[in-house]
Amino acid sequence: MEQWFTENWTENIRFSVRIKAKIHSEKTPFQQLDFYDSYELGRFFTLDGIMMANEKDEYVYHEMIVHTPMSVNPAIKSVLIIGGGDGGSVRELTKYPTIETIDLVEIDERVVITCEQYFKVTASKLRDPRVHLLFTDGAKYVQTTKKTYDLIIVDSTDPIGPGEGLFSHAFYQNCKRLLNHNGILVNQHESPYFENTAREMQRAHQKIKSLFPIAKVYQAFIPTYPSGHWLFGFASNTLDPITQFHPNVQEDHHIQTRYYNGELHKAAFVLPNDVKESLQNALK
Amino acid sequence: MEQWFTENWTENIRFSVRIKAKIHSEKTPFQQLDFYDSYELGRFFTLDGIMMANEKDEYVYHEMIVHTPMSVNPAIKSVLIIGGGDGGSVRELTKYPTIETIDLVEIDERVVITCEQYFKVTASKLRDPRVHLLFTDGAKYVQTTKKTYDLIIVDSTDPIGPGEGLFSHAFYQNCKRLLNHNGILVNQHESPYFENTAREMQRAHQKIKSLFPIAKVYQAFIPTYPSGHWLFGFASNTLDPITQFHPNVQEDHHIQTRYYNGELHKAAFVLPNDVKESLQNALK
Repeated sequence: MEQWFTENWTENIRFSVRIKAKIHSEKTPFQQLDFYDSYELGRFFTLDGIMMANEKDEYVYHEMIVHTPMSVNPAIKSVLIIGGGDGGSVRELTKYPTIETIDLVEIDERVVITCEQYFKVTASKLRDPRVHLLFTDGAKYVQTTKKTYDLIIVDSTDPIGPGEGLFSHAFYQNCKRLLNHNGILVNQHESPYFENTAREMQRAHQKIKSLFPIAKVYQAFIPTYPSGHWLFGFASNTLDPITQFHPNVQEDHHIQTRYYNGELHKAAFVLPNDVKESLQNALK
Repeated sequence: MEQWFTENWTENIRFSVRIKAKIHSEKTPFQQLDFYDSYELGRFFTLDGIMMANEKDEYVYHEMIVHTPMSVNPAIKSVLIIGGGDGGSVRELTKYPTIETIDLVEIDERVVITCEQYFKVTASKLRDPRVHLLFTDGAKYVQTTKKTYDLIIVDSTDPIGPGEGLFSHAFYQNCKRLLNHNGILVNQHESPYFENTAREMQRAHQKIKSLFPIAKVYQAFIPTYPSGHWLFGFASNTLDPITQFHPNVQEDHHIQTRYYNGELHKAAFVLPNDVKESLQNALK
């Protein structure tokens, strides 16, 4: 009998993937965690039934959330990742010899442990000596830590369940406080297409825009996230992602990318009229 | 009981839409034709079970396939549309007072008749006096007509069923023959993501590239087509879509667009590395 994994993109839209096998399933103290092998996407894992990453296209998300800020400030040395327990963002960051320290604050240790076992495609660099794993609540961490960072990456789930606190005004305010001069905040910014995610996109933009003089949104094709039209936020006190863009940073370090390139960096910030309008409406 | 429409994006990926009602269903001499009303996408229609257009995002496809060439050659007066029986491309074209004649060659008259009844969002301008409806096979039409055109839009279904002949070398060759000096050929170019559509993307590119000195590919977010990452082809003997781009054409004619804009025109031609590579591999 055929086995299918189905995700409700909305109450009225479903995305289904034919699976070969369920590889692992557990209820952690924080969420339901499942790993599957599939025909079309290779392995993938879900949190509370929502697909987080799959072998076919995880690189799009992780390249776009890492190489975009790295091309705006190549002097980045210290990075804080909130969430990101699968290790994909860490993997891309460790390609830069210039990065000295990466603090990964993941609430759920089980995500790291199981990804190291079942999802090696992203988890391969979590034991890089520059990486420090902290299993605690990201919202609390940014409230209390005394450290500062050149780059903060909010690599969170959707704003329901454990990810909820990572979309609050207080959270973004604390991030801002932790940023060094020329610091950058990048966050997964939901999708403009379906009403449920568009509302979160608007809320996030409204909050970030109220805190940072430079707050822009960029996009990528991620077919396995709801609608396939996914956004990222770029915020900084000093650096504009277009005018301060350095086109040769990856080339200088012999970093190969499968999706990201310099022209695409700039193009990704060019939004369709409907998305621009929705973001502007959020500020009214 | 809930009713769902499900499309197999591949053998192993399904996209499902909860429907309020099936509005109309018929077997035409060419294909199965169905209209639905849905909770998330409004009305939509399918040919042989494949979604062609829906009220929520049809404008993305139709704006991108029309305004892109119109911004490269604002002097376009005569247009040939192959397929496009839903009228969406016609609707966008009729916004230009400078366009004098639009020949719509649609194999299946029933698509036009039923869209005028059940899908007015796209079909509203099919009776514009500049529009000439010809219900015949597009592949045969381009072989035999003596007319020539400033713009040919291949607004076809996938290359299976009635749309198959619209992806052949002979078809593109005939299109080239019918183009005036500074003529442009634009075609729906499938998607790079899933293997089945990527193969058709490669084949189309290989053929068009062998015929036209300028042959480029551009992209848009169309969440209800397989993967949501959809491509268009732009080909011309003389005009490059970037260097010959005119940024103010829509503004000059007071044409409002919901997705397309001048910056996006250029950004749409910037492809991710994986897509560039796949297109280059097609030429080997």
